[in-house]
Amino acid sequence: MILTDSLLDFFLETRQTSEDLCKPLEIEDYVVQPIVDVSPPKWHLGHTTWFFEEFILKPHCANYQEFDADFSFVFNSYYETVGKRVVRSDRGNLSRPSVKKVYEYRAYVTNHIKTYFETNPAKELHDLLEIGIHHEKQHQELLLTDIKYILGNNPLLPEYSATFLDHPIETHQQEWIHMEEGIYGVGHATEDFCYDNELGRHKVYLHPYEISNKLVTNGEFTEFIIAGGYSQFDLWHAEGWDWVNQNKVVSPLYWHKIDGEWWHYTSSGLKMVDGNSPLTHISYYESFAFAQWKGCRLPTEFEWEAAQSYFPWGKRWEWTESAYLPYPNYQKAPGALGEYNGKFMVNQKVLRGGSVATPNNHTRPTYRNFFQPPLRWQFTGLRLVK
Amino acid sequence: MILTDSLLDFFLETRQTSEDLCKPLEIEDYVVQPIVDVSPPKWHLGHTTWFFEEFILKPHCANYQEFDADFSFVFNSYYETVGKRVVRSDRGNLSRPSVKKVYEYRAYVTNHIKTYFETNPAKELHDLLEIGIHHEKQHQELLLTDIKYILGNNPLLPEYSATFLDHPIETHQQEWIHMEEGIYGVGHATEDFCYDNELGRHKVYLHPYEISNKLVTNGEFTEFIIAGGYSQFDLWHAEGWDWVNQNKVVSPLYWHKIDGEWWHYTSSGLKMVDGNSPLTHISYYESFAFAQWKGCRLPTEFEWEAAQSYFPWGKRWEWTESAYLPYPNYQKAPGALGEYNGKFMVNQKVLRGGSVATPNNHTRPTYRNFFQPPLRWQFTGLRLVK
Amino acid sequence: MILTDSLLDFFLETRQTSEDLCKPLEIEDYVVQPIVDVSPPKWHLGHTTWFFEEFILKPHCANYQEFDADFSFVFNSYYETVGKRVVRSDRGNLSRPSVKKVYEYRAYVTNHIKTYFETNPAKELHDLLEIGIHHEKQHQELLLTDIKYILGNNPLLPEYSATFLDHPIETHQQEWIHMEEGIYGVGHATEDFCYDNELGRHKVYLHPYEISNKLVTNGEFTEFIIAGGYSQFDLWHAEGWDWVNQNKVVSPLYWHKIDGEWWHYTSSGLKMVDGNSPLTHISYYESFAFAQWKGCRLPTEFEWEAAQSYFPWGKRWEWTESAYLPYPNYQKAPGALGEYNGKFMVNQKVLRGGSVATPNNHTRPTYRNFFQPPLRWQFTGLRLVK
Amino acid sequence: MILTDSLLDFFLETRQTSEDLCKPLEIEDYVVQPIVDVSPPKWHLGHTTWFFEEFILKPHCANYQEFDADFSFVFNSYYETVGKRVVRSDRGNLSRPSVKKVYEYRAYVTNHIKTYFETNPAKELHDLLEIGIHHEKQHQELLLTDIKYILGNNPLLPEYSATFLDHPIETHQQEWIHMEEGIYGVGHATEDFCYDNELGRHKVYLHPYEISNKLVTNGEFTEFIIAGGYSQFDLWHAEGWDWVNQNKVVSPLYWHKIDGEWWHYTSSGLKMVDGNSPLTHISYYESFAFAQWKGCRLPTEFEWEAAQSYFPWGKRWEWTESAYLPYPNYQKAPGALGEYNGKFMVNQKVLRGGSVATPNNHTRPTYRNFFQPPLRWQFTGLRLVK
Repeated sequence: MILTDSLLDFFLETRQTSEDLCKPLEIEDYVVQPIVDVSPPKWHLGHTTWFFEEFILKPHCANYQEFDADFSFVFNSYYETVGKRVVRSDRGNLSRPSVKKVYEYRAYVTNHIKTYFETNPAKELHDLLEIGIHHEKQHQELLLTDIKYILGNNPLLPEYSATFLDHPIETHQQEWIHMEEGIYGVGHATEDFCYDNELGRHKVYLHPYEISNKLVTNGEFTEFIIAGGYSQFDLWHAEGWDWVNQNKVVSPLYWHKIDGEWWHYTSSGLKMVDGNSPLTHISYYESFAFAQWKGCRLPTEFEWEAAQSYFPWGKRWEWTESAYLPYPNYQKAPGALGEYNGKFMVNQKVLRGGSVATPNNHTRPTYRNFFQPPLRWQFTGLRLVK
Repeated sequence: MILTDSLLDFFLETRQTSEDLCKPLEIEDYVVQPIVDVSPPKWHLGHTTWFFEEFILKPHCANYQEFDADFSFVFNSYYETVGKRVVRSDRGNLSRPSVKKVYEYRAYVTNHIKTYFETNPAKELHDLLEIGIHHEKQHQELLLTDIKYILGNNPLLPEYSATFLDHPIETHQQEWIHMEEGIYGVGHATEDFCYDNELGRHKVYLHPYEISNKLVTNGEFTEFIIAGGYSQFDLWHAEGWDWVNQNKVVSPLYWHKIDGEWWHYTSSGLKMVDGNSPLTHISYYESFAFAQWKGCRLPTEFEWEAAQSYFPWGKRWEWTESAYLPYPNYQKAPGALGEYNGKFMVNQKVLRGGSVATPNNHTRPTYRNFFQPPLRWQFTGLRLVK
Repeated sequence: MILTDSLLDFFLETRQTSEDLCKPLEIEDYVVQPIVDVSPPKWHLGHTTWFFEEFILKPHCANYQEFDADFSFVFNSYYETVGKRVVRSDRGNLSRPSVKKVYEYRAYVTNHIKTYFETNPAKELHDLLEIGIHHEKQHQELLLTDIKYILGNNPLLPEYSATFLDHPIETHQQEWIHMEEGIYGVGHATEDFCYDNELGRHKVYLHPYEISNKLVTNGEFTEFIIAGGYSQFDLWHAEGWDWVNQNKVVSPLYWHKIDGEWWHYTSSGLKMVDGNSPLTHISYYESFAFAQWKGCRLPTEFEWEAAQSYFPWGKRWEWTESAYLPYPNYQKAPGALGEYNGKFMVNQKVLRGGSVATPNNHTRPTYRNFFQPPLRWQFTGLRLVK
Repeated sequence: MILTDSLLDFFLETRQTSEDLCKPLEIEDYVVQPIVDVSPPKWHLGHTTWFFEEFILKPHCANYQEFDADFSFVFNSYYETVGKRVVRSDRGNLSRPSVKKVYEYRAYVTNHIKTYFETNPAKELHDLLEIGIHHEKQHQELLLTDIKYILGNNPLLPEYSATFLDHPIETHQQEWIHMEEGIYGVGHATEDFCYDNELGRHKVYLHPYEISNKLVTNGEFTEFIIAGGYSQFDLWHAEGWDWVNQNKVVSPLYWHKIDGEWWHYTSSGLKMVDGNSPLTHISYYESFAFAQWKGCRLPTEFEWEAAQSYFPWGKRWEWTESAYLPYPNYQKAPGALGEYNGKFMVNQKVLRGGSVATPNNHTRPTYRNFFQPPLRWQFTGLRLVK
């Protein structure tokens, strides 16, 4: 159990970090939503604030005056339990509330939370506060990837930051780690914070496998492109093949071929693709096709978890072969918080690891991220198994 | 022919007016595009500027330095002649160039045009300058209607301006003007500016008709609603009936029923509907159905033009029964300017008159506006004929 | 007024002809609906029968026993007045009633109509019978064009009939007919049968024009193709240009380029395109673009009607520049029959003339056919004006 | 290894059975395709024949004369390896080849296969023949479910067969079977025929569970309906909830509420729903929501396989919670046959068991059927676990 003081510090640091991430933005950048999966930055700032207001201040803080009654409608995301909401595809149509007003809303709610917890030594709401902090940290990652999409799809290709380097390099030699057949434990086991979908520590039986200690690189994927991987149907799932053809996909997201060379948009602007850097912004379909082409496969999420202590990870969210399903004895939380994870457990793939956009300490070996197979705007990557 | 001096004044006044119209906006309001027909205000400001740069400065002004080579891509609207362009539905996805940059672009081009015409007494480009001015005036009207849509579809319903009153009243008595059978002349006849679609003054034969000297009011249309007009299929065109049902239309755009009363969003905020004010924000389909219900019909554009001097007009663009078609001997202008009107002459309806959003002197008795039948975001209205 | 005897003969001949047109079909051909505009032949046979049952036998024939109560649902087309109906796009999903049952239905209704009119000398229902006959004749034309589409889009390209030649030749020299400026009368004037949309004989003022005495040929259109007409945006309406690009249109419907030569599917199978034969199966958009390319234009429906006695016509429905609108003082018929024409008077184009598929005596100089601009499965054609 | 004689008998019996299943059909019933998932019966008859021609006769039978070169295009289903094909959604647009021609094609290919194997004692092609037989047996199940859909969505609701009873009853008492925690073996282990997706017998670790010995009944599901299960969002996956609302789902497929009672279309016509009969024609989403409502869950495919010998099964394909994924060491077959299973291993759910429409001996404890979550036209059902 985290003590109140450090929890409050954690809260305040988190609130500040979200705003720091937006420092390089023009006001206009806060507003747009180029695709449905990407939310406007001001929406992230408002929604994470609404979460504290809706689940802590309004139900538990006796004399709390709501900042603006309409904000509940504007900043609710998908919680059916708590009333109507702006449909997701409409977020980019809302010029108001203004960015200035959203920052006022943030300050107002942050202060009320601070005052409340300073004057309320009771521990009952610490869990709620903690989940709100983690919720905001998740949105910090989305802020970075959504901003990248907003700027990276603008014809002017503006830079986000000269110092946020989203293309690190793994310098170690590629090797295959041999994992023995047997029973392994998976799922969250400690007292630390985790989401409900990680709970229910349980046993799985794994057959022997070899897992790479290194992520697939841009260089390796370029060979796949040159070898015609995007036009060889037998490497792809049927729906992956349809996706390639309908969207005319010929490279990872953000890649541009200029005068015969591959460049890509990065958070620090348009750069030449570095063959040594780990591949990113690929769909599950592309990960699978690449693995097929190499005569390998993707790990299951259990294989990944069992082996993760033997290799460095955390630069890329890694696609696994596992579908996002409940663990045995999974129990979703009651009420609105129960809508957090469980209702998405169909037709999504599990990703393991973390990424350059993940806040410090916001991932762990048991963390289960999940996305639909075609999505590419996250810092996704892949690791091979054979 | 307008002398250069007054033409330049006209130019500078027009440039200033566009910016004045945007004074009440927050920066965020400049960016969004809630439906494909509505463009972001900053796009209007940029596009009208690009028009002068693309058609006057770049081809005719020897040492002109383009402001930014990418802007041609960003601010071209539909001119196939002059290269690639951002597709219309993507305009609201562009956070950059920033509003500040767009205003710099405006100042830069305005100054270059000013200098050029001050130092160039030759008359050859006056026609181009004049069409550019009228083009910008057209966009001033769109600015007002697009801003109304942006604010009027925001759940916070922010006011645009306390002084722009978009719901004037016609105080005179309704009467039927009798028009005699015979040959009438239609089309533009003077030396003043007009668009190519008004040219080719010609004769039409009209049969006798009675036309109202007054626009249909909110009060009359409310009776139609109460009488069940939106659910009586035999009042509607087949495709109008489909439109009503697919979009669940039960009232004009911007109307809200609150506690049994009709309110509507106006440029000065949410107001109770005034029964005496002329109806607006209706589609052609609704106009037609209302006329059917009254046992009347809409005028043709020729009937309107022949009778227009006998009644006041200019508050609402009035739907006519006429399809938007070329006049006899219509000739479209050569090159990119020829794309202005002619290529839209199919599946649109002519509207005559003008509206509260139309700039001063920007309409005339022969002006032919045109929209697809379902569109409602303009200040449309209707006048009956029997 | 047609006497009963000859009207009954006319009825019986019409009923027989519909069935004769289907003689070459396999049972399977009666069932399919490859696009929404094409109805299954058995639906045409049933629907024309239902018309007599619904509008004559059920309301007027005292002891009439309905053939099957479900058929009203199955065979109603678009009459909102008379209850629910199978949606148009679902007609090809209905394997039942079987073709055999539909023929039994036809015989049953034909016999009841025959008996009724033989024993009922009263004249009140003659108008209804006559409109039912003309309605069936209209469907005979659709039968031929729909069958052509069904067979012509089958990869096996089966022949419909060796004797129905849908590609006649106009052997006369092309000449321009000069028409004088002045007032002309248009609309139906005699006592003979016509539809409500032709009524209201009225005056129009025409400016001088020259109209071709000959339809545009395949040879002329092939020159347009070779000249790159399908890829020159400035020849097209904006929505025509979108249509070309979205549908990748490069030739008239049914044309196939095989080893560098143009072939087309005809009712008698795949044949080489004959340059001397009048062009057919083109959209309004293509007609317009071709005329632009020739420096000409399409006639209005009034120009066509005023000049039609000076040239042969009837092989192709000819696209006109006119939108399909009501004539002055147009009155739609009361009740369900009023749904026949009026509710389609928006966003369609008028075609004049008739075609090789039009039954004998089923067209006339004032007949107004109408289709949406992109439709091509009728035997459409074009005639130039300058 | 099956001896040739009995394999040939198996082949001939299978060919005959497919035709017997179609005996009750009218010719028209063979042609239609009311939804994309349902293929026309004549397509099934042709496609199963093409499989033998394409994979056995054409490559291996020296002097074989192809029946019709166009049939390869018409009857290929999804094999990218073997050339172009009619897109799936167009199958119902093809009136030709006629049903008669398809039966001739069947006889022709059946005879050539028979002659070939009678005169060719070599064993190399037995595996291909066997897979072709199983392929046809799979299509026999689809024939029955597709015919049900074709007739059950016809407004006349015609009966398929008075003797095929698709609503059997499980008469035994419901009990919970307790399964111990531990390691279980899953996957195909014997020499008998199976598909590649069942191979790779391997170990899984299961935690303790209780599984019902009885399928959920119509009566139980009716309680769910009455309790408002279709309108309680928290029982559903997010995408299931969208599916319910977009499709306005209020009951299983084929159910109709008539005068307050639930009826359903069965293969022997419209019948009152029997509360004791096992529920069928439900989606995965509905199965999941029902289980949530009962405080239970669906079994994984491994739990099902481990327990299946303790309960009767085979009346309904049972939805499981498992996603359709490759087993460890899954190897897809080389060439076109490799397209059979592997390329569908994303975004589908596994169903276990079999159904009243499954041919004799065509299922087994390790058989893995798979469908997308919303599909309902198969005889799907569910079994609870707690």
